[in-house]
Amino acid sequence: MAKAQKKALPVTRSENFSEWYQAVIDAAEMAEASGVRGCMIIKPWGYKIWERIQKRLDAEIQRTGHDNCYFPIFIPLELIEKEASHVEGFAKEMAVVTHHRLEVRDGKLVPAAPLESPLVVRPTSEAMITPAFKRWVQSYRDLPIKINQWANVVRWEMRPRLFLRTSEFLWQEGHTVHASAAEAQEETQTMLRIYADLAEKFMAIPVIPGTKSAGERFPGAVETHTIEAMMQDGRALQAGTSHYLGQNFASAADLTYLDQQGEWQTPHTTSWGASTRLIGALIMVHSDDDGLRLPPTLAPHQVVIVPIIREGDDETKILDVCGQLAARLGEQTYEGEPIRIHIDRRPDTPSNKRWAWVKKGAPLVLEIGIRDIEGGQVSVHNRLAVGDRAVSRPTDEFIGTIGQTLKGIQLSIYEEARAYRKAMIRTDVSTFEEFKAHFKEQSGFVRAKWSGNPESEAELKEASVTIRCLPYEQTGTQGVCVLTGAPATTDAIFAKAY
Amino acid sequence: MAKAQKKALPVTRSENFSEWYQAVIDAAEMAEASGVRGCMIIKPWGYKIWERIQKRLDAEIQRTGHDNCYFPIFIPLELIEKEASHVEGFAKEMAVVTHHRLEVRDGKLVPAAPLESPLVVRPTSEAMITPAFKRWVQSYRDLPIKINQWANVVRWEMRPRLFLRTSEFLWQEGHTVHASAAEAQEETQTMLRIYADLAEKFMAIPVIPGTKSAGERFPGAVETHTIEAMMQDGRALQAGTSHYLGQNFASAADLTYLDQQGEWQTPHTTSWGASTRLIGALIMVHSDDDGLRLPPTLAPHQVVIVPIIREGDDETKILDVCGQLAARLGEQTYEGEPIRIHIDRRPDTPSNKRWAWVKKGAPLVLEIGIRDIEGGQVSVHNRLAVGDRAVSRPTDEFIGTIGQTLKGIQLSIYEEARAYRKAMIRTDVSTFEEFKAHFKEQSGFVRAKWSGNPESEAELKEASVTIRCLPYEQTGTQGVCVLTGAPATTDAIFAKAY
Repeated sequence: MAKAQKKALPVTRSENFSEWYQAVIDAAEMAEASGVRGCMIIKPWGYKIWERIQKRLDAEIQRTGHDNCYFPIFIPLELIEKEASHVEGFAKEMAVVTHHRLEVRDGKLVPAAPLESPLVVRPTSEAMITPAFKRWVQSYRDLPIKINQWANVVRWEMRPRLFLRTSEFLWQEGHTVHASAAEAQEETQTMLRIYADLAEKFMAIPVIPGTKSAGERFPGAVETHTIEAMMQDGRALQAGTSHYLGQNFASAADLTYLDQQGEWQTPHTTSWGASTRLIGALIMVHSDDDGLRLPPTLAPHQVVIVPIIREGDDETKILDVCGQLAARLGEQTYEGEPIRIHIDRRPDTPSNKRWAWVKKGAPLVLEIGIRDIEGGQVSVHNRLAVGDRAVSRPTDEFIGTIGQTLKGIQLSIYEEARAYRKAMIRTDVSTFEEFKAHFKEQSGFVRAKWSGNPESEAELKEASVTIRCLPYEQTGTQGVCVLTGAPATTDAIFAKAY
Repeated sequence: MAKAQKKALPVTRSENFSEWYQAVIDAAEMAEASGVRGCMIIKPWGYKIWERIQKRLDAEIQRTGHDNCYFPIFIPLELIEKEASHVEGFAKEMAVVTHHRLEVRDGKLVPAAPLESPLVVRPTSEAMITPAFKRWVQSYRDLPIKINQWANVVRWEMRPRLFLRTSEFLWQEGHTVHASAAEAQEETQTMLRIYADLAEKFMAIPVIPGTKSAGERFPGAVETHTIEAMMQDGRALQAGTSHYLGQNFASAADLTYLDQQGEWQTPHTTSWGASTRLIGALIMVHSDDDGLRLPPTLAPHQVVIVPIIREGDDETKILDVCGQLAARLGEQTYEGEPIRIHIDRRPDTPSNKRWAWVKKGAPLVLEIGIRDIEGGQVSVHNRLAVGDRAVSRPTDEFIGTIGQTLKGIQLSIYEEARAYRKAMIRTDVSTFEEFKAHFKEQSGFVRAKWSGNPESEAELKEASVTIRCLPYEQTGTQGVCVLTGAPATTDAIFAKAY
């Protein structure tokens, strides 16, 4: 009987998924708790991954004609109040600033100088941005306005989890104003496609794009579009949303413009966002029991070179060869970008280094020692085959085919996630009894008909299940609602979610 | 008598420098007040400039081996207290979060759920980062640690001014830990050189690099390095600082490491930062009475194309030609980057558009109408010659020499600032009487000998004058201290400052 191979993490997915998630983050040195409730420190490896996501997403945001701006972190309570009054379900867990000075009293530092009116640390910026739009928009000539900001936001979390639910997180929030409903709807679609591409092509995460049901819509939105990903425990994670707000926010804020006929009109607005939560999805979709696995398109280092220097070896020569190898690889490209290489020169053993990069998820690790140099070869470790021995490949051939090699890894990691998802979506659940039994036992998605009845949706929540989306791809067949048995044609995705 | 030419701004530098500063920001649409005391909205044009600065500076920070991270926006009061106790002169104007929920009471939204212990919105992150270093550093193998973060910070401002003094501002803060004093000192020098290059070569702002006197040092630092720029009212602005903190911060936090001999040692730390204040400097160094002027290396758009479409013109043809021109220009480079072109297609008159770009400071504006197309030429407006008529240049020649043209503008704008600064630095002030008379009448810098006596420095502050720096470039001649008359060899720069 084959002995179970020892894994790099102290806990496996099947043992305890939630502890395993935390173990991946620790082992890959991506983030850590900060001592401030729910606020995380994003460490260099985690932040490099965020920078890669940012760079890619920002290029798309700018390519589609949006301008970046920056709005204040503080929102006056009156503005929050104004917005809260017309938006039900408004989150109230916010950090509130009440003082603007610290003073020493009885040898202790205490808050002093109370503010006349408290300030809220932004949970999102609609309340601040809509009044700015009012100043900026006079006539149809000023439309559309298409802006975005990269910022930190704060929503107090009682049960925080790194990347998934943190009191402070990083995100981008886009906000646009349009003359017509059609143009605003087109905008929300454009942005959802960008999010879907980011997930699928860049992060190798298969997603289901669709619209939210009324019960899951962004408060105040007319329509919410979403991409939904499946984690390796069968639960769903919403990875990006795009909202068509209709005239709701504009009306509430008295935002109007003069049209070409000289008439006052109410514009249509949108908002859309994606956050550091994406990194949580990345971890839960791709990692294994040895740590993180990064798709090459996203990976900060696609190839890590570990010099093998033994007692008596010519260290200078080995490091020179590593440098030359890095330079030659850097001239090659994958997906239109130069290959990203890192030489690990830290004072540690080759084995420790290799395992560090396994845990951090680098797609390829090369070991270069005297024997490799003499043989004109490189020893290649592929992150998708951790248990296997290194494969020796002629240096020239390895360099010449690096683009194809990375492409192959990208494809494999994506296909693996797709295959898992496919196996975990049930389409054969047709009664509410079967439905409840499924979610009692496991978490995989159920794709089934739904009548659209809002009451049935409320009932669902008791089972901790939600409608994740009404996928864009509809079969259009006639059937019965899995919740009520009523006739229904709409396909819905049901799941437990993060 | 020549009639004074009308200027684009409602107020000139000589009429009221401070109102002029605000007028430049308004006219260039860079930023605006937000309604939250001292917090600004950075509008697209201001933010694009910040993104350019960020991109350049971040590349240098990463090239020199620093990793970006992200630390929480909130710092527990206890950590601030710990640091405040060993650092005198600690700023106490901070935003304090005391509650984590909003509730509706008597129809009003009020802070609810007080925090057990208040949180401070970071004014800088030493208090948060040093404890993290304690977790990360065990032995000499973990050193050096070189990290940076791009973040928003808050210091409550009673007299805010856009970009110069805002309650919230954006910056980068670098923090490093080293085994030896020499290595830490080398680090502070490297970073100051990077700031000096950013100012001089990228922003075309001449700066004086030097060290701070004891009275102007960062609280707790052993040595503070600075770059000082001169504004067009003769006042100084500190544009970037780099601090050698010695073992002070490490000792206070009990930060230690095990050296190669197995002994516990206290490491040496540094910190360094630059902020959106740089944009304030940019405005006050380069702008004129027609608005902002941008050095081409920094400018988000180096060339703006304004299509001239008159009644009866073939609009499609004109726009096609503009598109082709943009494409051909985009194949050219300046300073290793493709030329950045923008076609202004907004529905407005050519004259309004041209003036909008004058005020925003675009280096070159091209007007393209039917006559230009038929003549195979472009009509060129140079931002450095606003009053002049457009210059017609053959299209091919214009494209072929665009790199040189931009280089010429970059040089001119830099030389103009240098010439102004040179004229405004007095080196002939030798007595304290002359010194006081100078600063009573005007603000230009005084370069003179200083004895290094800390008491004389304190006295200076009454005259609202400070020692900006002891420049790296010292003459080394023997003289007398301009403040005390005592013998002195050190040259110092004295100025009123922002």
